[in-house]
Amino acid sequence: MAPQLDGYFKQVDSLSDHFIERLRKAVAIPSISADEERRPDVVRMGEFLAAELSALGAGVQQRPLGKQPGKEHLELPPVVIARYGNDRKKRTILVYGHYDVQPAGKEDGWATEPFELTIDDKGRMFGRGSTDDKGPVLGWLNAIEAHQKAGVDFPVNLLMCFEGMEEYGSEGLDDFINAEAKKFFADADAVCISDNYWLGTEKPCLTYGLRGCSYYSVEISGPGQDLHSGVFGGTAQEPMTDLMRILASLVDTDGKIQIPGLAELVAPLTEEEKSLYGNIAFTMDNLYESLGSQTSIHPDKERTLMARWRYPSLSVHGVEGAFSQPGAKTVIPAKVIGKFSIRTVPNMESEDVDRLVFKYIDEQFKKLGSKNTCKCTLQNAGKWWVASPKHWNFTAASKAVEKVWGVKPDLTREGGSIPVTLTFEQATGKNVLLLPMGSSTDAAHSINEKLDKKNYIEGIKLLGAYLHYVAEEPMVN
Amino acid sequence: MAPQLDGYFKQVDSLSDHFIERLRKAVAIPSISADEERRPDVVRMGEFLAAELSALGAGVQQRPLGKQPGKEHLELPPVVIARYGNDRKKRTILVYGHYDVQPAGKEDGWATEPFELTIDDKGRMFGRGSTDDKGPVLGWLNAIEAHQKAGVDFPVNLLMCFEGMEEYGSEGLDDFINAEAKKFFADADAVCISDNYWLGTEKPCLTYGLRGCSYYSVEISGPGQDLHSGVFGGTAQEPMTDLMRILASLVDTDGKIQIPGLAELVAPLTEEEKSLYGNIAFTMDNLYESLGSQTSIHPDKERTLMARWRYPSLSVHGVEGAFSQPGAKTVIPAKVIGKFSIRTVPNMESEDVDRLVFKYIDEQFKKLGSKNTCKCTLQNAGKWWVASPKHWNFTAASKAVEKVWGVKPDLTREGGSIPVTLTFEQATGKNVLLLPMGSSTDAAHSINEKLDKKNYIEGIKLLGAYLHYVAEEPMVN
Repeated sequence: MAPQLDGYFKQVDSLSDHFIERLRKAVAIPSISADEERRPDVVRMGEFLAAELSALGAGVQQRPLGKQPGKEHLELPPVVIARYGNDRKKRTILVYGHYDVQPAGKEDGWATEPFELTIDDKGRMFGRGSTDDKGPVLGWLNAIEAHQKAGVDFPVNLLMCFEGMEEYGSEGLDDFINAEAKKFFADADAVCISDNYWLGTEKPCLTYGLRGCSYYSVEISGPGQDLHSGVFGGTAQEPMTDLMRILASLVDTDGKIQIPGLAELVAPLTEEEKSLYGNIAFTMDNLYESLGSQTSIHPDKERTLMARWRYPSLSVHGVEGAFSQPGAKTVIPAKVIGKFSIRTVPNMESEDVDRLVFKYIDEQFKKLGSKNTCKCTLQNAGKWWVASPKHWNFTAASKAVEKVWGVKPDLTREGGSIPVTLTFEQATGKNVLLLPMGSSTDAAHSINEKLDKKNYIEGIKLLGAYLHYVAEEPMVN
Repeated sequence: MAPQLDGYFKQVDSLSDHFIERLRKAVAIPSISADEERRPDVVRMGEFLAAELSALGAGVQQRPLGKQPGKEHLELPPVVIARYGNDRKKRTILVYGHYDVQPAGKEDGWATEPFELTIDDKGRMFGRGSTDDKGPVLGWLNAIEAHQKAGVDFPVNLLMCFEGMEEYGSEGLDDFINAEAKKFFADADAVCISDNYWLGTEKPCLTYGLRGCSYYSVEISGPGQDLHSGVFGGTAQEPMTDLMRILASLVDTDGKIQIPGLAELVAPLTEEEKSLYGNIAFTMDNLYESLGSQTSIHPDKERTLMARWRYPSLSVHGVEGAFSQPGAKTVIPAKVIGKFSIRTVPNMESEDVDRLVFKYIDEQFKKLGSKNTCKCTLQNAGKWWVASPKHWNFTAASKAVEKVWGVKPDLTREGGSIPVTLTFEQATGKNVLLLPMGSSTDAAHSINEKLDKKNYIEGIKLLGAYLHYVAEEPMVN
């Protein structure tokens, strides 16, 4: 039975100016979590959210997370948690978003004031946080308000979890989620996170997978202190020479990882999965546009998407301890630390990856016959995540997309990681859905971040519609 | 005919406290050329020198060098030039030194105040500039004064050139030397520079060669901007991957340069030259001590000295544009610039080295089959220098060392470069001798710089004795 959504949709349309005003107020608060001096603004943004939620009749709490690790003079901004509805006959959906933003300043090259929502004639709403993640967060509030004003019964109980430190490593959040999983979040039937983007600009998607990331350091040391290359060049074994050889042995120009055994950990590609990639709305021109060049590894869309979503990759990020400034300096660095990371995918277990990496680097270093010392360590690891896109949570979202946008969404994965996704899945044991509002051109984390008016308003409809379809889905999974 | 030096030597001994006081006054002036705020102190140090020289009866000029390139609000400190004696029957010796010093502060780890000369019970005189290069510069002034007080005729005409920007690239000096070569410096018969160090701590040396240096950048670029390794890892050819492979192909752990044709440019080792290295006062323990480790390439002294003095070496200094901080950042840098340099030796012509380097890097990059762009450029080049140690300038210095220290000096070369050496040779067309005063443990450029009292006082005798032997040498070369 298809839910009756016309009244709700009309109400969203007629409240659209009001919803844009709400976004304008939120963007005006420069809640930059990375900037110590902006901490009061982050707190103010949390208070704004809590007040709006209270006014809508939700039960709101601002929960402290304690001192910021490493900066003990700073209080972490509170997590804003809220419940709207407490009807045991309804399903309960837990949604997550964040109310902090990336740094931004006119001097970085913004065309408009980053903390003034500025709408151009194409309906692009420019402003820091517009798409990441204030637009989607307010989307949930707007959906509640439109239901109230349309006199439509809200179809689910809604649990909300909005944090203020996402752009600075989500300090303190994992512990909080784990602690509340069987308390405040106890009755959640599924989780929905709106904090990513469509693959392109035309077609919505639902995201069911993320790669993990294992980040390594290789430290090579020899001399007791930095040396002058004039005096010592030719007489000392140089750590930088060894490090270049180690880092060069990891991956080739076409991205092929040289570490034996790693490819064997990857889940085999089935014919069924293979057939999915051709239909995804994505072109090589999309890739070239976002790269700013045509220096791709693969010539076709299918292999490009697979390389991004379902195969591991290895990137060398840089070298610590060597000369890194412009100009010329004739130093022989005494200790250099190469940084590289591997994006991991099913079924790569972190411990297996570590073991193969350490073994390979050890072998490569031994081959050099060097008197220097080589030490490889794991800096941090985040696991990959893949959900079942056949779960009712996804089916409901898919129907909502078709209703609002008139098209079946692409089922996508992402190359990067959103660590909170896995935390919610593991803490609640429930299906997690990533339901993006913005598009690939929104420039989150960059200058001139924007959210298209259409994506915002239709996105509010989508979030509401999703909840209605959730209420209708059979209790199968 | 051996010169009569006893009266002069006795006078130096009896004036030693006075000479140490002169050094104390000089060290007390923090003439740090790299520090803008210390520029008045550099100028004050030049004035101090000029006043001392005038008081000794020398004709002194402080010659302006104009504005500092790139810092046009700053005047370069003047070059202090002076002439002592103008007797056409005598030889004329041009000496060079510098009155500026490296930065120094107690907070860097100095055991004593760096700008207070502090003498310990072993006769070590600690202070910034003590050995580099205020001690040697004052050595020439002290030699003049001791001759005057001993009533000994000064054996030569002395031309002096003392600059105040040596520790900051000798800004403006080359042009000045070239301009004055046929004017103020016109009657110089030979040049003597006291601005380097003994190879060890026991045996004096005369230095007749320096390596050159060609410094290169390899720039590899691809994407239009830095990328996120989660989103793009596996889909884009990464400039850092290519750069690691290029840099790894240049040299091996044992310092063997992999660029074909380079070794063939090096002057062959003759049996005569080979036989010289065994007698040099140097041990592997000396090397290990200065390395702070045992990570040497060669196990023996002879090959180590040859590798340092007469063979080229290649060092990779670092990477610009990549992640170089502590911690973890998942960036794919869009443009990275590798820096490396080759220490050059006879008979490597810079143009030939460039040609072979560019060709090799071009070939290595082509092998990668990369769509990125690779560009290799020469940042700067300084030529090697080798003088004839059989010239009367060296013979005189050798006799002086034997007279003062009772031992024949080692004839040495150095791995690093002192560019002004070549400038003086080319501008005057005369033989240049490097005659060090301090020893290998003096820690020039480091914390706790010192000059041993014995090296200072015997060094003053040595400089004077050298001038007497110069006056006696036959007019052969």
